[in-house]
Amino acid sequence: MEINQRWLRRLRTRIAPRTAPGTSPGTLIADPTAPPPEITVIAYGPEEVEEAQIDDPSQLREFKDRWPVLWVNVNGLGGIEAIEGIGRIFDLHPLALEDVVNTNQRPKVEEYDEHLFVVLRMPHLEDVFSTEQVGVFLGPGYVVTFQERRGDPFEPVRRRIRERRTRLLNADYLAYALIDAIIDSYFPLLERFAEQLDRLEDSIAERPAVHLLSEIREVRHDLLALRRAIWPARDMLNALIRDPMPQISAETRTYLRDCHDHAVRIIDVVETYRETGSSLTELYQSTVGHRLNENMRVLTVIATIFIPLTFIAGIYGMNFNTEVSPWNMPELNWYWGYPAAIALMAVAAGAMALNFWRRGWIGR
Amino acid sequence: MEINQRWLRRLRTRIAPRTAPGTSPGTLIADPTAPPPEITVIAYGPEEVEEAQIDDPSQLREFKDRWPVLWVNVNGLGGIEAIEGIGRIFDLHPLALEDVVNTNQRPKVEEYDEHLFVVLRMPHLEDVFSTEQVGVFLGPGYVVTFQERRGDPFEPVRRRIRERRTRLLNADYLAYALIDAIIDSYFPLLERFAEQLDRLEDSIAERPAVHLLSEIREVRHDLLALRRAIWPARDMLNALIRDPMPQISAETRTYLRDCHDHAVRIIDVVETYRETGSSLTELYQSTVGHRLNENMRVLTVIATIFIPLTFIAGIYGMNFNTEVSPWNMPELNWYWGYPAAIALMAVAAGAMALNFWRRGWIGR
Amino acid sequence: MEINQRWLRRLRTRIAPRTAPGTSPGTLIADPTAPPPEITVIAYGPEEVEEAQIDDPSQLREFKDRWPVLWVNVNGLGGIEAIEGIGRIFDLHPLALEDVVNTNQRPKVEEYDEHLFVVLRMPHLEDVFSTEQVGVFLGPGYVVTFQERRGDPFEPVRRRIRERRTRLLNADYLAYALIDAIIDSYFPLLERFAEQLDRLEDSIAERPAVHLLSEIREVRHDLLALRRAIWPARDMLNALIRDPMPQISAETRTYLRDCHDHAVRIIDVVETYRETGSSLTELYQSTVGHRLNENMRVLTVIATIFIPLTFIAGIYGMNFNTEVSPWNMPELNWYWGYPAAIALMAVAAGAMALNFWRRGWIGR
Amino acid sequence: MEINQRWLRRLRTRIAPRTAPGTSPGTLIADPTAPPPEITVIAYGPEEVEEAQIDDPSQLREFKDRWPVLWVNVNGLGGIEAIEGIGRIFDLHPLALEDVVNTNQRPKVEEYDEHLFVVLRMPHLEDVFSTEQVGVFLGPGYVVTFQERRGDPFEPVRRRIRERRTRLLNADYLAYALIDAIIDSYFPLLERFAEQLDRLEDSIAERPAVHLLSEIREVRHDLLALRRAIWPARDMLNALIRDPMPQISAETRTYLRDCHDHAVRIIDVVETYRETGSSLTELYQSTVGHRLNENMRVLTVIATIFIPLTFIAGIYGMNFNTEVSPWNMPELNWYWGYPAAIALMAVAAGAMALNFWRRGWIGR
Amino acid sequence: MEINQRWLRRLRTRIAPRTAPGTSPGTLIADPTAPPPEITVIAYGPEEVEEAQIDDPSQLREFKDRWPVLWVNVNGLGGIEAIEGIGRIFDLHPLALEDVVNTNQRPKVEEYDEHLFVVLRMPHLEDVFSTEQVGVFLGPGYVVTFQERRGDPFEPVRRRIRERRTRLLNADYLAYALIDAIIDSYFPLLERFAEQLDRLEDSIAERPAVHLLSEIREVRHDLLALRRAIWPARDMLNALIRDPMPQISAETRTYLRDCHDHAVRIIDVVETYRETGSSLTELYQSTVGHRLNENMRVLTVIATIFIPLTFIAGIYGMNFNTEVSPWNMPELNWYWGYPAAIALMAVAAGAMALNFWRRGWIGR
Repeated sequence: MEINQRWLRRLRTRIAPRTAPGTSPGTLIADPTAPPPEITVIAYGPEEVEEAQIDDPSQLREFKDRWPVLWVNVNGLGGIEAIEGIGRIFDLHPLALEDVVNTNQRPKVEEYDEHLFVVLRMPHLEDVFSTEQVGVFLGPGYVVTFQERRGDPFEPVRRRIRERRTRLLNADYLAYALIDAIIDSYFPLLERFAEQLDRLEDSIAERPAVHLLSEIREVRHDLLALRRAIWPARDMLNALIRDPMPQISAETRTYLRDCHDHAVRIIDVVETYRETGSSLTELYQSTVGHRLNENMRVLTVIATIFIPLTFIAGIYGMNFNTEVSPWNMPELNWYWGYPAAIALMAVAAGAMALNFWRRGWIGR
Repeated sequence: MEINQRWLRRLRTRIAPRTAPGTSPGTLIADPTAPPPEITVIAYGPEEVEEAQIDDPSQLREFKDRWPVLWVNVNGLGGIEAIEGIGRIFDLHPLALEDVVNTNQRPKVEEYDEHLFVVLRMPHLEDVFSTEQVGVFLGPGYVVTFQERRGDPFEPVRRRIRERRTRLLNADYLAYALIDAIIDSYFPLLERFAEQLDRLEDSIAERPAVHLLSEIREVRHDLLALRRAIWPARDMLNALIRDPMPQISAETRTYLRDCHDHAVRIIDVVETYRETGSSLTELYQSTVGHRLNENMRVLTVIATIFIPLTFIAGIYGMNFNTEVSPWNMPELNWYWGYPAAIALMAVAAGAMALNFWRRGWIGR
Repeated sequence: MEINQRWLRRLRTRIAPRTAPGTSPGTLIADPTAPPPEITVIAYGPEEVEEAQIDDPSQLREFKDRWPVLWVNVNGLGGIEAIEGIGRIFDLHPLALEDVVNTNQRPKVEEYDEHLFVVLRMPHLEDVFSTEQVGVFLGPGYVVTFQERRGDPFEPVRRRIRERRTRLLNADYLAYALIDAIIDSYFPLLERFAEQLDRLEDSIAERPAVHLLSEIREVRHDLLALRRAIWPARDMLNALIRDPMPQISAETRTYLRDCHDHAVRIIDVVETYRETGSSLTELYQSTVGHRLNENMRVLTVIATIFIPLTFIAGIYGMNFNTEVSPWNMPELNWYWGYPAAIALMAVAAGAMALNFWRRGWIGR
Repeated sequence: MEINQRWLRRLRTRIAPRTAPGTSPGTLIADPTAPPPEITVIAYGPEEVEEAQIDDPSQLREFKDRWPVLWVNVNGLGGIEAIEGIGRIFDLHPLALEDVVNTNQRPKVEEYDEHLFVVLRMPHLEDVFSTEQVGVFLGPGYVVTFQERRGDPFEPVRRRIRERRTRLLNADYLAYALIDAIIDSYFPLLERFAEQLDRLEDSIAERPAVHLLSEIREVRHDLLALRRAIWPARDMLNALIRDPMPQISAETRTYLRDCHDHAVRIIDVVETYRETGSSLTELYQSTVGHRLNENMRVLTVIATIFIPLTFIAGIYGMNFNTEVSPWNMPELNWYWGYPAAIALMAVAAGAMALNFWRRGWIGR
Repeated sequence: MEINQRWLRRLRTRIAPRTAPGTSPGTLIADPTAPPPEITVIAYGPEEVEEAQIDDPSQLREFKDRWPVLWVNVNGLGGIEAIEGIGRIFDLHPLALEDVVNTNQRPKVEEYDEHLFVVLRMPHLEDVFSTEQVGVFLGPGYVVTFQERRGDPFEPVRRRIRERRTRLLNADYLAYALIDAIIDSYFPLLERFAEQLDRLEDSIAERPAVHLLSEIREVRHDLLALRRAIWPARDMLNALIRDPMPQISAETRTYLRDCHDHAVRIIDVVETYRETGSSLTELYQSTVGHRLNENMRVLTVIATIFIPLTFIAGIYGMNFNTEVSPWNMPELNWYWGYPAAIALMAVAAGAMALNFWRRGWIGR
């Protein structure tokens, strides 16, 4: 049961925005438990790549002026000043920055005058399923990404930048590459779910312990959370493909269509797993029902065979005085009395057993 | 059970409009139990703020003429004259006023020539879940709000007015700020539901008492009511964002989009809770089923082991006359008769126990 | 069960049109059991109102020529001549008249060249839930309504005509007022359903008798029938509001929007009741399950405690000859034999009871 | 069970087209078991009607040239030459003719250059529910209908042609009349379903035999098949009304709207019956559950009362030697021993019975 | 259980693309277990047909230049060079080629500048249900198809090419013919499902063994997988019919409409089978329930009849000393004592039996 409570608590912390109802929108309030921001820059042009870790956001201005393409990545949302500093340099909209800090957004894309703002949820492959919010700003010549903490699937993208792939010279293609990496990071998660469902099925079939049911419930809940993370991501990708946004070129749209295809396939698999989840509950119920039935069959067979026998034995255990009258239990004094009684019992038991055998309750 | 009847009664009182079928529309009939209206005015311009509590609606005319922005708030709908008075001053449509008084409206937005009319439902965080209707009129330079009774989440908005935030100089932004405050007041409610579901889950897992089922049903019903309050609110916000309404500026629309996002997130959480609600019912059923199974297993094991033993004891309790014939219960006179019978019983019991142990019914 | 059969029969009579398949459309065939038509006229202008009950439809022509607005109401559809007569005077389309006579139409609106034809279903508040078809023709300066029998919620409208409310001088507003009165007459019905569900819930919680289940089924069926009557009514109102129909003025559309709101609210409540209905079925099932469990617990506790005791008693009821050997039931001749046996039994019973107490099956 | 297998087999035969995958489309392959075609012609103008049964399709050319309106009806699809002959004369599209021969089409309308092609399914009122495919070709001045076998609801249409109703002089109105006759032929079927559901309900309430469940399943399956036949028919009618098709006049569209209304009503009733169907399954389950409960109550009451009594009797059946000690079963030698034991039993039984009575398990 | 695990494993292998998240799109990575590609060419014009099996893709260039229509078919996707070579010759888009190699695509159509790319899933009729991905490229004068392995339903199409059917001179008609062959190859699969469902139903009705439930689950899972393969195929066909694509002529669209019809019919049947699947689960549950009931009835009847009898026997097995008092078991010394006790038992048993007979638990 412990596990289930965990997710409920997890769920609860995710519900409300950090600001009180009625507060002015665009107010940034950092999560006190969030790690401090680490700002990394990858700046590159057709010829060169420069990578740096910086402390003061104002250093970014120089990078922005000097390089054709700039990717600023922030890990950790614990420092408001740094985030606001970056916002000032790239002119990021306060409402978008508020969404960056309140890490409970659904995947979405928002068009502002200066830039696109994309929110995605990145799955974590730790012990317990959870997702981390990633905010992606795409403007002319720059991409800014905000992550809740370290650890991301962007390493191959960095490698491709260092190898100076020409397509990455377009900021929109860079944004696509990052989004694609996040979407594709759902696939290993799906495999873990497949293993978990597989293992659960084996366990239920072997022995339907009550704790399995609560495990099924947790898997189903996680699949529901996964579904809530990926469905709006698909809509977001659809909007990126169809809506006329000047920041995204026609060529990048072709690639985003591929990414959309992946999201649709993930949804497909999640829906199948959800069906499998409820069919596991069903399997549990029917395995339990089967065991109850078996229980009852054993009880019925034993009780139904022995109860009449015990009755017969009880009859001849009565103490009627055989000397008072010839009608009082003359059997007790017969020569073959006892063997006859045993035989009677054997016949009764045999008849019952035959009956049960015919109904298929025993021996088949 | 008591609790459930409560909601049914609550439900019923909310169904019908106060006017009889066939009455002329626009007829205002006050709820006799409603508290009398308290009219508060906050009037402000770029430089100054004036706040007042007034008794006679006609005083409002002067405020309206003198100040750039006027927010009239009415708590309590028990006095028809006051409401009609306000309606006359701001030219509010009779059908909209009728909706104000019949406090069972669904969230909606209606466009009239002079003004917008928005209906929202504000949740109450008291012992029992309920919502209060809030009617918001937005016209040129004024916002009029009608609440059923005192107590609202508007205090931060009033503070922001007193701090003379520039954006609030637009009446449409003021209306947005009020709507946003109402929507955001659903978040604490969601947390309470999370706690309630959490507590229910613990209780069921510990001991599936029958009253828990009725608690689950109440939570599920409340979630349904919550859903009915927030879904149309989302549609209303969507209409405010998309439909061309002259009363709302493009900038305010950007903020309303943020508010719409919050509503979508609330819906998301409510749907998850509804799933959790039905999974709790399922948990209850399977916990009960598990207990029944355990019951039956105990009964089966005990009965199946002892019934044959009792039969054997019954056999040797029979009174066949051993003196009449050597076939009549010779065992009774054997030297090792009793130990042999006990041994027979022990073997029978042991075989049964072994059988059950193999099936996993005992000792594992 | 009797009740349920009733609705099935009711249902069946409502299915088929009166004409045989393949018959020419527009053929009027009266229901032989329908009451004969009673024709009432209310004719009025800005100054005067004239009311009359007429026998011969041809009298209507004079009314039509003399008065600005004419409302002809027909109660009872048993006379084809009268209906055809009215049809000729107002040029009503034969297909529409056929629908008037076949009183199993769904609510709808149909536009003909000369007039609008609206079908509605009016609920009846008698013992058994049923709806009556009302056909409303709206043409220039006249409204013709056809009801299946006497009894309608139109009395307040008649009163408002007699009071010469100016708005009623438009025929379309008159039609709206009649439609509104019919829609609003669903509200008292909803309250009756609330009471019925309330009462059912109490009864189930008290004692889940099997007849309650069939009552739940009847309520659920009635709610389904209600839903089938009100959903298309909403669509019909939507069509009246949105579709460009010359017969309906913009002002009346504003009022129809209000009426549409009421229909939406009724649907909302019906859906909630339907959810309540299925949750009652669930309550019944789990209450029955709870009782079965209790049954089994009592049986298990009693059987499991007494079966081993009876076995012990059976042991010492065996008749082994104690004189043959010292191993044959020496206990019988012990000084403390009987008290020891009783003590053994008490210990066995106590151990079992303790076990059950620990599992929470007794005494808690 | 036998019945259910029947429908599965029926289902299977209906799945696949007659041609192998990869065959050239438009290839006609007759069902070898289909009856040979019978071709009937009704040709008429404003003045005269000529009816004929013909053997050779080429005779049709003359009819086509001579008469304003021609209705060719084909019963039986067993002869490819005849069908191809008709196709040549009226220039019917090969793909449409292929659909005529593969009698497992869903209702649909297809526009070809020369003609409209409508597919409908006509219900059969025989012992087992089944539908027959009817293909209707509507071209300038002719209607060609293909039926699988004899027996149709078109007799009233033929009578109306013979009576020379003027509207039937338009081929599109003739097509409407035929479609209308097919749609209306669903109504008697619905009544039969109502009766069947009615009868099932009575039987279940009386005694939930296991074969009833399989009857319910068959009804539900038939309703599903019916739904599959009528839903696309509605869409087809909708397309006929809305899509701009030159073959259909505005006036005929008004009549088709009426026909569409009928289809909607049939769907409505089918949906209600489907709900009734699942509620019957529910009724079965709960009636069975009720009986199990009753079973268990009887068992519990009898066992729980008598097991302790038998134990008491067992106690005093023990053979402890009363002469060895005064503690060994002194009750056996008491003056009132036996009556006291009986009284003890009566008290125990009475206490149990009272307990059960209080729980409402007996006597209420 | 074994079977079910199989599909989970099958499912898992199909989830993820072969490339790691973040890899550059358009990167081809062959499945190491895939068979090496076999390239077959059918090139034809109005007069001649040439067929060849080639090893080196560059040979294709010559074919392409020389023949009006070219169909290149590739069986096996184990060699990247060959696939890339074909891609270079026909200018196939890298993203499309990546989809060819990752054989877990959903059916779809994608428009590129040079060609259409259609993905379909072809069912396999082996022991276990599975689908193989077929990629179809349609460009001016050529069709390229990629299959995972040998074995396809295209033989009749090849025969029609060899017979030089004129329509096949259009590449788009050739593509249609191939798509049609794939869609039609679902029909035999449906028949196999029908047989399987049929057989399952028989088995359940005869004896609801627990392994049947897991077979039902497997069938239901396969039907779900089938549904996932055919639904998007329908959408793909719809897109081919409706979207303006220059590669497809109006005439071919008419044929594709026919193919779309087949897909809709397959979906129809799949949905019916899915309903049948869940009704089989229901049948299983209720058959099991019926057997449990029967069990309990037998147990109740036997136990309820014999328990009181055994009690009576127990009474007269008590050892009260009849000599101490006239009240101690005087029955034992009566002349008719024993026959009276037997008679009492017979009466008790008869009353019980009558009671059960009346309730319909025995003998009816």
